[in-house]
Amino acid sequence: MTDTRDHTVDLFHRGRFHLVQPAARGHRAGIDAMVLAAAAPADFAGRVADFGAGAGAAGLAVLSRCPRATALLVERSPEMADFARKTLALPQNAALAKRANVLEADVTLTGQKRIDAGLPDRSADFVIMNPPFNTAHHRPSPESLRKQAHVMEEGLFESWLRSASAVAAPTGSVALIARPRSLPEILSGLEGRFGGAEILPLHPSSDLAAIRIVVRAKRGSHAGLRLCPPLILHEGPANRFTQRADAISNGRASLFGD
Amino acid sequence: MTDTRDHTVDLFHRGRFHLVQPAARGHRAGIDAMVLAAAAPADFAGRVADFGAGAGAAGLAVLSRCPRATALLVERSPEMADFARKTLALPQNAALAKRANVLEADVTLTGQKRIDAGLPDRSADFVIMNPPFNTAHHRPSPESLRKQAHVMEEGLFESWLRSASAVAAPTGSVALIARPRSLPEILSGLEGRFGGAEILPLHPSSDLAAIRIVVRAKRGSHAGLRLCPPLILHEGPANRFTQRADAISNGRASLFGD
Repeated sequence: MTDTRDHTVDLFHRGRFHLVQPAARGHRAGIDAMVLAAAAPADFAGRVADFGAGAGAAGLAVLSRCPRATALLVERSPEMADFARKTLALPQNAALAKRANVLEADVTLTGQKRIDAGLPDRSADFVIMNPPFNTAHHRPSPESLRKQAHVMEEGLFESWLRSASAVAAPTGSVALIARPRSLPEILSGLEGRFGGAEILPLHPSSDLAAIRIVVRAKRGSHAGLRLCPPLILHEGPANRFTQRADAISNGRASLFGD
Repeated sequence: MTDTRDHTVDLFHRGRFHLVQPAARGHRAGIDAMVLAAAAPADFAGRVADFGAGAGAAGLAVLSRCPRATALLVERSPEMADFARKTLALPQNAALAKRANVLEADVTLTGQKRIDAGLPDRSADFVIMNPPFNTAHHRPSPESLRKQAHVMEEGLFESWLRSASAVAAPTGSVALIARPRSLPEILSGLEGRFGGAEILPLHPSSDLAAIRIVVRAKRGSHAGLRLCPPLILHEGPANRFTQRADAISNGRASLFGD
């Protein structure tokens, strides 16, 4: 499969996996998904549920780095779920695809409806989420696909984290990537569900405010919140990736150093 | 006044002001108070209320850097308030002392009781607080003075921020220094009272988790939360202060660069 007017085939982790993505419309995966996937510890060997998986970038990036992990790619949009299925069907992804499944489902469903949709209780060891985090009045986009991926709904983190808590195993973890401004809503969504939160800020350069945060937390943990050393993305006059940002975005290092 | 068995006279901001502090018992001011004071913008020219002032370290550090500011040092403990009064009486502090007053009062008082205690509504342009942030089961200390300064009570940030919101002018600000684990309680205490929160983490070195956060926020602001570039305290094999940490702790730079 090659690029067409409708889709592109993009290479990640220096070619260790590929994604079939909408060419212009829709959400295209980038550094956010790679950094989120790097929140999994290097020795992670369980089942990851990728909430809002899109074409599968973050979930496949976990599989690419953690050879014993399996992934469930959960995507609500039929078009994006189709891209995820096309991604798994790529011959280049044959090895990884054996450890991955696509589930077309809305992660905000609750109770029996969620279970019936294919998201049973305690079925994942690690839930990762890259939720649509731009508010409705922020950078609106006419394309419906992109809108679905980028427009944040009221109470999004609350509903996504509620499902993550139900789907996570008793010692399971959650990790998400979001804008710093969402931190109050995220901490409130974690409360009573996940503990031992670790916040890792992403700064475009060492002198600028964070543009993203990765938050990781564990079910049943009573550890206090930690603020980890930040990830600086670029440095120098040419604004190149820092060594650490390059290693993390290419699946050669874990974000939290574990 | 010189050091005795009961107190010491300590030099801050490279000698620009001094503190009379309990020699062994009680809370002794250090880097936390200096960093908190650095949250005031360089051109700050209003009235600062220092909640839980102790011997006056943070409040006087604001006055030392901001020549047009005035300070109200609010301290509940009669013994520590006495140290603050002795501090203002030092000949070395004569110039600064003209712009400072000590108020022996409990900042957790509410409504008319707070007003009667000397903390009227809208009376401060900037409230700074270095609250007792070690939980009761954490590093308990037999000395009652130290206990008062270090033992955190349930809902401390809620009650301190409630008073800060009442005491702050309509466009006033608040700044506090705390442990990262208190962030959820701090954000919840700011909600509906202060907006535009800026979080600045303090890391002992670039590869270690933050040990403190400074949070600054503004009444009436609708700006989203920002996560600022961190302050790294030490570097190098000798673990010396970084240039920025040295400048900030000695009153030669503001923490948020404004």
